[in-house]
Amino acid sequence: MTATANNGVRIDVGVATQFVTAVLRALKVPGDDAACIAGRMIEADLSGAEAHGIFRLPQYATALMAGQINPTARPTLQKIAASAAIVDGDNGFGHLVMSHAVQGATAIATETGVAWVGIRRSNHAGAGGVYAAMTAKAGMVGIYGAVSGVNHMAPEGLSEPVLGTNPLAIAIPGPGDDPFVLDIGMSTVASGILAKFALEGRQLPDGWVVARQDGSPITDPVRVSEGMLTPMGGHKGLGLAFMIGLLAGALNGAAFGKDLPDFAAGGGFGVNSGQFLIALDVSGFMSLPDFRSRITTSLTEMGILSPGEETDFKVRLPGVDRARRQADQLKNGLSYSPQLLSRLNRLAQELSVGPIHRDADGV
Amino acid sequence: MTATANNGVRIDVGVATQFVTAVLRALKVPGDDAACIAGRMIEADLSGAEAHGIFRLPQYATALMAGQINPTARPTLQKIAASAAIVDGDNGFGHLVMSHAVQGATAIATETGVAWVGIRRSNHAGAGGVYAAMTAKAGMVGIYGAVSGVNHMAPEGLSEPVLGTNPLAIAIPGPGDDPFVLDIGMSTVASGILAKFALEGRQLPDGWVVARQDGSPITDPVRVSEGMLTPMGGHKGLGLAFMIGLLAGALNGAAFGKDLPDFAAGGGFGVNSGQFLIALDVSGFMSLPDFRSRITTSLTEMGILSPGEETDFKVRLPGVDRARRQADQLKNGLSYSPQLLSRLNRLAQELSVGPIHRDADGV
Repeated sequence: MTATANNGVRIDVGVATQFVTAVLRALKVPGDDAACIAGRMIEADLSGAEAHGIFRLPQYATALMAGQINPTARPTLQKIAASAAIVDGDNGFGHLVMSHAVQGATAIATETGVAWVGIRRSNHAGAGGVYAAMTAKAGMVGIYGAVSGVNHMAPEGLSEPVLGTNPLAIAIPGPGDDPFVLDIGMSTVASGILAKFALEGRQLPDGWVVARQDGSPITDPVRVSEGMLTPMGGHKGLGLAFMIGLLAGALNGAAFGKDLPDFAAGGGFGVNSGQFLIALDVSGFMSLPDFRSRITTSLTEMGILSPGEETDFKVRLPGVDRARRQADQLKNGLSYSPQLLSRLNRLAQELSVGPIHRDADGV
Repeated sequence: MTATANNGVRIDVGVATQFVTAVLRALKVPGDDAACIAGRMIEADLSGAEAHGIFRLPQYATALMAGQINPTARPTLQKIAASAAIVDGDNGFGHLVMSHAVQGATAIATETGVAWVGIRRSNHAGAGGVYAAMTAKAGMVGIYGAVSGVNHMAPEGLSEPVLGTNPLAIAIPGPGDDPFVLDIGMSTVASGILAKFALEGRQLPDGWVVARQDGSPITDPVRVSEGMLTPMGGHKGLGLAFMIGLLAGALNGAAFGKDLPDFAAGGGFGVNSGQFLIALDVSGFMSLPDFRSRITTSLTEMGILSPGEETDFKVRLPGVDRARRQADQLKNGLSYSPQLLSRLNRLAQELSVGPIHRDADGV
């Protein structure tokens, strides 16, 4: 309940998880599935991927109420080769579908060293880093890619978006218990961050969004839908978005390109979303302790770890902030803005569920 | 022999390949291996990855003469699981080692759907896109990553480079015969391009290289070694370079971090270079013709392909320029600068091999 530097209110992890579970159950999601989805959503918040956590719940609720997500989906996994499989998500929550995919991929990779699982008929799964990290916690390398539910970007020369920000997440066991986790969208900035700026009434920096016709900068968050997101690293990020789109979308028989709506039109649920997950068993290469010790030695030599330490990182590397934030929030609670808590409480009221926080601003 | 717009001299593909083969044979590389390596080097030029083609030959020759590359290497592949293998490169040419890895990975993926091949004790293999494209020509998705032979970049907060530009290449069968091929280094600009600017005496744009101590821009190509390369897309590119370094280096028991020299010191051969190659058989998901037709439909809907066309791309996508350039150069010859041809002729003279081109400037 302490206010944090950025005006956030601290909410206990258990309270937040139970709140999400209750909202989902009120929307006809079976109990175990609701708990699984809530867990993944709160893990996104814990790891700092705030734009993919509880912030999305009102959007998911709207999609459930509109019948765009199947609340009682039963995802199935079909092997297509010794090391490859396709998961049909039955149009369920991406969080549920991806949890099945992680289980399937790690089981296959335990047998054959590697697994590639393609996913179709899924939905937005939140933060890809969550699934990559689950794979890494099983002693494996996890690589996740996804087609965004809406299109935000375009190759140079097109004036309407035909590509998503198509995220890539990679997790690799690290020196200590926490894996390295890279989780990046292929735009300069994540669309969820734009929505957060809009909610908080903040101007966008130059270079995040450009007008569709002439490429001029758009800095008013309310005018984002008149523009397109710029790719990170120019043609490199655009190229990655395209290739990830082919792998997670086209190859799985899932949506790609104009199968998906323009983000200005919103939506993006029930559109046959695709993902993929690669799992690679580290123990085929060397024992996990040997791998950890090898990395620890390298990072110490590089001046990144203090000698004799496994977790005292001196610079920013993928997953380092994530681990720190997770430890802080598990102890002190998740930090949510008063605006977000008000929005969640309004949703709870509509569904006759108890509020997430009784003192939230504006309630 | 025609001069091109950028003052290049056209050299026939066969002539260039035979020249490289002759140089390598003069340096004790067996005939078949020399032809294989020459083929991959010229393919890099053909596809537009000029900084990874014949331009590198003098550097390879120096490394061979210094005993840093094993001219008679015999790479071996060892299975570590049904779908995973390690190739020991015997400190040979990366081009030779990676050619073996492609063969091994496609054979495994034909059996089990997927292969992950880790490579150790290799060397610089030129353009990763060449190996990804070979995999795609076999009806598979090819994903290649490598640790650079020298370090060019650092996480923010360190003032000496401890990470390479660690390239990633992805190739996916496309609508026509030519695959989509993305081949990107994790720096804003490739180090080979910097060397080309230096050779041609051109100033560098702002933002490519920054001074080690204060991050101020370096634009004089002669002063590059006083600086570090900037990562593409900021922390996203840096994070990718780090993760690729762990996968291609640490996991394979190959060099990572301070195992590799600072680029200011040069070298980077005989340093236990690591790569990885993933092969994924498309036919487990759908037949290759179905995949091609699915992509063609999507790209036509997106306004990228003209209706009824498989190769008439209206925008820049990964591999489109590559395919055009390849067709042009196969017909009209490779385009090499007079400076490069002079350099190659000097090398030829040292080794008592015939010149690549008799009219080159300054010969």
